[in-house]
Amino acid sequence: MTPSESPAEIDRADPEAEIAARATSFRNWGRWGDDDVLGTLNFIDAEKRVEAAGLVREGTVISLSQSFDTDGPQKGWRRRTNPVHTMTDTGVDAERENQGFPHGIGGADDVISMPLQCSTQWDGLGHIFDHGFAWNGRRAGDVVTSEGDLVTGIEHAASVIVSRGVLLDLGRHLEHESHELADGYAISASELDACALAQGVTIGRGDIVLVRTGRLSRARREGWGEYAGGPSAGLSLTTAGWLHRTEIAAIATDTWGFEVRPNEFDVPSFQPLHQVVIPNIGLTIGEMWDLDELARSCAERSRWDFLLSAPPLRITGAVGSPINPVAVF
Amino acid sequence: MTPSESPAEIDRADPEAEIAARATSFRNWGRWGDDDVLGTLNFIDAEKRVEAAGLVREGTVISLSQSFDTDGPQKGWRRRTNPVHTMTDTGVDAERENQGFPHGIGGADDVISMPLQCSTQWDGLGHIFDHGFAWNGRRAGDVVTSEGDLVTGIEHAASVIVSRGVLLDLGRHLEHESHELADGYAISASELDACALAQGVTIGRGDIVLVRTGRLSRARREGWGEYAGGPSAGLSLTTAGWLHRTEIAAIATDTWGFEVRPNEFDVPSFQPLHQVVIPNIGLTIGEMWDLDELARSCAERSRWDFLLSAPPLRITGAVGSPINPVAVF
Amino acid sequence: MTPSESPAEIDRADPEAEIAARATSFRNWGRWGDDDVLGTLNFIDAEKRVEAAGLVREGTVISLSQSFDTDGPQKGWRRRTNPVHTMTDTGVDAERENQGFPHGIGGADDVISMPLQCSTQWDGLGHIFDHGFAWNGRRAGDVVTSEGDLVTGIEHAASVIVSRGVLLDLGRHLEHESHELADGYAISASELDACALAQGVTIGRGDIVLVRTGRLSRARREGWGEYAGGPSAGLSLTTAGWLHRTEIAAIATDTWGFEVRPNEFDVPSFQPLHQVVIPNIGLTIGEMWDLDELARSCAERSRWDFLLSAPPLRITGAVGSPINPVAVF
Amino acid sequence: MTPSESPAEIDRADPEAEIAARATSFRNWGRWGDDDVLGTLNFIDAEKRVEAAGLVREGTVISLSQSFDTDGPQKGWRRRTNPVHTMTDTGVDAERENQGFPHGIGGADDVISMPLQCSTQWDGLGHIFDHGFAWNGRRAGDVVTSEGDLVTGIEHAASVIVSRGVLLDLGRHLEHESHELADGYAISASELDACALAQGVTIGRGDIVLVRTGRLSRARREGWGEYAGGPSAGLSLTTAGWLHRTEIAAIATDTWGFEVRPNEFDVPSFQPLHQVVIPNIGLTIGEMWDLDELARSCAERSRWDFLLSAPPLRITGAVGSPINPVAVF
Repeated sequence: MTPSESPAEIDRADPEAEIAARATSFRNWGRWGDDDVLGTLNFIDAEKRVEAAGLVREGTVISLSQSFDTDGPQKGWRRRTNPVHTMTDTGVDAERENQGFPHGIGGADDVISMPLQCSTQWDGLGHIFDHGFAWNGRRAGDVVTSEGDLVTGIEHAASVIVSRGVLLDLGRHLEHESHELADGYAISASELDACALAQGVTIGRGDIVLVRTGRLSRARREGWGEYAGGPSAGLSLTTAGWLHRTEIAAIATDTWGFEVRPNEFDVPSFQPLHQVVIPNIGLTIGEMWDLDELARSCAERSRWDFLLSAPPLRITGAVGSPINPVAVF
Repeated sequence: MTPSESPAEIDRADPEAEIAARATSFRNWGRWGDDDVLGTLNFIDAEKRVEAAGLVREGTVISLSQSFDTDGPQKGWRRRTNPVHTMTDTGVDAERENQGFPHGIGGADDVISMPLQCSTQWDGLGHIFDHGFAWNGRRAGDVVTSEGDLVTGIEHAASVIVSRGVLLDLGRHLEHESHELADGYAISASELDACALAQGVTIGRGDIVLVRTGRLSRARREGWGEYAGGPSAGLSLTTAGWLHRTEIAAIATDTWGFEVRPNEFDVPSFQPLHQVVIPNIGLTIGEMWDLDELARSCAERSRWDFLLSAPPLRITGAVGSPINPVAVF
Repeated sequence: MTPSESPAEIDRADPEAEIAARATSFRNWGRWGDDDVLGTLNFIDAEKRVEAAGLVREGTVISLSQSFDTDGPQKGWRRRTNPVHTMTDTGVDAERENQGFPHGIGGADDVISMPLQCSTQWDGLGHIFDHGFAWNGRRAGDVVTSEGDLVTGIEHAASVIVSRGVLLDLGRHLEHESHELADGYAISASELDACALAQGVTIGRGDIVLVRTGRLSRARREGWGEYAGGPSAGLSLTTAGWLHRTEIAAIATDTWGFEVRPNEFDVPSFQPLHQVVIPNIGLTIGEMWDLDELARSCAERSRWDFLLSAPPLRITGAVGSPINPVAVF
Repeated sequence: MTPSESPAEIDRADPEAEIAARATSFRNWGRWGDDDVLGTLNFIDAEKRVEAAGLVREGTVISLSQSFDTDGPQKGWRRRTNPVHTMTDTGVDAERENQGFPHGIGGADDVISMPLQCSTQWDGLGHIFDHGFAWNGRRAGDVVTSEGDLVTGIEHAASVIVSRGVLLDLGRHLEHESHELADGYAISASELDACALAQGVTIGRGDIVLVRTGRLSRARREGWGEYAGGPSAGLSLTTAGWLHRTEIAAIATDTWGFEVRPNEFDVPSFQPLHQVVIPNIGLTIGEMWDLDELARSCAERSRWDFLLSAPPLRITGAVGSPINPVAVF
């Protein structure tokens, strides 16, 4: 039986069963062979990229990245802190001529310490496990050790993530005035379809879908508050089927955690949609993207698709990557 | 008098004069207004990006990034180390069920500590100073303090660096068999032009030029050795005029330091071309790019231009950024 | 004229004058020669250490260190974060036999990223400047560059800080019930003397004085709150003379910032006592020490002095050091 | 049968058996109860500390710490790098008045990133496992996860490691001229006894023994070379019985790895003595100590024992700690 796509029909007392139903129904293990390390990123094909490049008619670039600095939303949960950026050489030193360089050259240099998922990022396929299993049915402990992700590290996606991007501005679609969904609002599959329809845009295989909830707009206005991990609109667990059948390559949101929070259960639960889509569907998820300027631009143009270039950093064995995704019109 | 473009004519005893001649001749200060923070990146216009997108005919993506891990070339010079990537949660832990999460979900998470210029990167405009002056004539100490680059931080380029890329494979052009230039080989302006001519490609305003020397190919074969800071082919100081008059937006090489090493002087000197081009021309420089697969692809296709997407991470106040540049054909 | 030692007599509108009066009155520049790098630590002599060792009669050790972990009080002010401790190898990995070691050996290893003053620490002599001057009258910019403290780095104290410690439990002395001073309470010189007298302990040259306010006891009970940088009892600016004439080697408190907060001015001010005592007196200051167990032990024994061993880590060029000070009875 | 204490009698083809014989013979599991987290540190009692304090007759302190900076011996093996110390505020900035502080105060502040075992350090009890077992017979995976050492973290030793220290200068004892043992020299139990006898010093329960090989003296003279992990004199596997029956509290050397390297086998092996002494005996091991000045002082005084204060930093869950051990005479 196909799992329900109505958020109202979730059994809020039984996350195990609700997750398992979707994990088994939508599991893509083996779909791209036993050695696959890309999951749904495989849906991006050459034709899709040529189509995406064809969307570039104006030559405008919009960065979809939030800032990386100590003024970010992280509070130390599971050692996720904000980035610490420090200088090893500065212009003040150069001007004071204490650097020991010849002929008037001076330099500034810098280092950073940060969680790979502290700001705008991709979750790699090794980021989440389902009952000890990683993407494609591998044992979690065979994939990600203290040395990093030995199998599906994010470096494997270094030459992949350029495709057609589609913005679904659910905030604007559902909240005509504020353009911001309420915390705890669970976006359903039918709402995703309705939003696409209202915007006049289609979604197909290999696309990268960007869902704007308006959560970041509010954080920008009111301060970070509980942006990192607290209540937020986001995708309902019941969208798992939609995420599977649309054959999208990846999805990203303007929220900390992509799916609705609190999660849709009355018993202890944590990111159930992640548990379905990363290890089972093999879906790459983006979080903490800044979709506000993009949303304004799309609305002005009445155009909701664009070339999206969002390759991860080539960090060997990483289970996530800081990124600066760019939309090109 | 226009500075010579012949490497043989450099006065190897007088770096101050050789640098000053070029700094004053090619200085772009004020060209884009007093408040400019982008320098030659301003040459990338909408038309150029549309042209670049038009080069995407196959839908192929090639990453131009080296790896980010502890097996890199850095040796600690001025505290430039290789990245240290560590896990805060792993699949081994998830499988052993010690993470405290409900309903069978497990996770892996990671952090990184690294110099921003430890591997494939852009130098920001605040990276180099000339006699205490930064890009656009600002005092170095007004621009880059211990808090970072307060004026020209790399975050300002977050929505900019998507353009037409052109590969000039000097290694292949000058060394028909090995495709690798000898250490210390100073590439001249006329050789850059001859290479473009031989390849049948033109270079114009707003392009991003990638110069392959073959230095990385050798490091890959022989081990890192002195890749970071040691001898290498690279651009001659005498190419400053070429870099200025072509009105390119940025340039990148497959070497540690972009310009020839040892530098072209018999007295103590250090990266004189940097001193001319970053603070004076306002040129963004890429270093440690991996141009080998790109070179093979270009040669096979007999096509040397492509869409290049290489936005920096949005790190507030950074004077450099790790990147994963991608060429799209 | 000797500056007043009554907190009530501070001109709360004129920090410049109040600071300058004490800086000039109590300045120790040149007292230990032009090359001095130790300041008042010079007061610890061999005789003092023998006396201190003679205080060890029970063989009991009490650590005066708070914990170093992500659950600390720091909130990112000026990039002061809590420590991030991560594992590069774990027992979970060892047990799963994925480490590649022979004959059944397994290992765990770890790394840390932290501000040197994130938890229990010494301020080095290069930590604070007075109008651009560092300890002993040196120009601040000649002492601490982006390379670190080139002159008075904390490594110079590596073989020094073992002496007689004396606890002054001002919390207990002034608040008989709660043993906790109120936030904003400015401890005066006469109260320091009265506390010593009441405890029956003398303070002399070379001693290290530990002042307990009770601020940490409260943070332990109520949560960190504004422990880092917020309101707290602490030493009044007017104690500068006492700190000078007692010829103590160093002083430490159980608070974030040693001196009373808010500072004793109605106009913008920041740590005025630091400005007097570090660059001018050459006093080494300890902050964020845990004096609670020590206080209980001292009260039980009616003994307030002990051997104190608190050498800094030998971090080259550091302006502060994490420490684990131990009191031995 | 008691395992041989002659290095010549080791079966160089069978590390498993040689290790197992000693692990089972000298195992201290349960000796201090099921909940023990200190191992042989329990041997330090109050009487021992009073005895140690009684050794302080001159008031002289000698730091036994190497430096912590980027010029250290580490080369990245298993992500062990040298410390990276960076400034977040400097005197150069203060002097240029760009820090935004009132009334002429300026400040310098700093951060560090480092492996906890990059320089002078203690190995914690969670650092090494034997066939998946940690100290006191616990499962390695129950003790050290990605969150750190949940049971025997080094913070438990914060109030413990002050005792009598005894230097055994094997370099001087066996090499009268150079005072440096040859690489690969395996120190035997009988040599440890003979050295103590020659020096006229006894070793007993609760002492902390410091073994000088001269390896650091050579590194200081010749450069680091292979100091970290390469050939070195050190303790033979056959000293396990001596380490057990002397009931010493801890041991430290001036080498990277405490035991002789290469290890005493002709087949692949790695630190077999660690495998015996940490998880089985519960011995705390110090590595990379600087014993050279101490050795000179001891020889001059003809005194080989002293008060040793070497508490670890209170880093929650750490399996090692950077330290600055001090000897007080």
